[in-house]
Amino acid sequence: MNMRNNTFILISIICLIVGCSKNNQSSKTTSMNVDSIKNIILAKENATLDRWYSCDPMGFSDNSWEDVTYFDPSLTRRVDSIDAFREFLTPIIGKVHIPSHKFDKPLIRVFGDIAILTFTDVFMVEKDTVRWHATEIYQQRNNDWKLIHSHWTQKVK
Amino acid sequence: MNMRNNTFILISIICLIVGCSKNNQSSKTTSMNVDSIKNIILAKENATLDRWYSCDPMGFSDNSWEDVTYFDPSLTRRVDSIDAFREFLTPIIGKVHIPSHKFDKPLIRVFGDIAILTFTDVFMVEKDTVRWHATEIYQQRNNDWKLIHSHWTQKVK
Repeated sequence: MNMRNNTFILISIICLIVGCSKNNQSSKTTSMNVDSIKNIILAKENATLDRWYSCDPMGFSDNSWEDVTYFDPSLTRRVDSIDAFREFLTPIIGKVHIPSHKFDKPLIRVFGDIAILTFTDVFMVEKDTVRWHATEIYQQRNNDWKLIHSHWTQKVK
Repeated sequence: MNMRNNTFILISIICLIVGCSKNNQSSKTTSMNVDSIKNIILAKENATLDRWYSCDPMGFSDNSWEDVTYFDPSLTRRVDSIDAFREFLTPIIGKVHIPSHKFDKPLIRVFGDIAILTFTDVFMVEKDTVRWHATEIYQQRNNDWKLIHSHWTQKVK
């Protein structure tokens, strides 16, 4: 009887330890990774915009998953899929050259494998300040982060 | 020695069962809930827009968490927080009356406690068709779903 009781107690303790260590590991990993995830997202967005403003819009499709969706004010309907996004971007190749720009109020919120980056991109065109509001939703797949949805709106004067 | 081995095997089996049942429960719950989550999100968005188009924009703030953020083409910078959102919406009370509208290509993607709804809202103003593209990001907290970010863009003619 004592042996049975001991076995039962032992099993309970081991199950408890296994459960706790699983939970601890998960919450530690999450809190440890948030800062590095934010750095990855900002670096990816910066690289994409550096290419965009240097006449190479295809950085956007390179930074997107196959099922990416996209909105901007020029569109009648949402762009669905990487192929449609490439088709949309191709005519813009060589056309946009902006020497410098800055992120206004960048905010990144991380929810597991989803990261939401919002900011206003600000630059000058001749003597006018131009502002584009961006919502960039990244998802982590296979240890890489890319866009699953992108939405851009120009501030109307 | 046999008793020890048996105990070890028993413990291993129990740990395996506990682990598997945890994983199964989680994936079953997720797949079972996706359709009902989508229904909740669509009902919330419809209710919000029904109020908006009946002169009551405060449905948007009622449908938002405290840390909601918001973009549209009229803004210079992102609206951050429910208080700032209410301040933005208040002057619009009583001003927007649209008898009917429809969702073009609504798409909801659910990632755990985050749901991303994108669609184009289409309605008539006199003889013109007006199209607004929407990205509505909902988060589940305390068994309720509300907006954490909302981004609207009017199609430019």
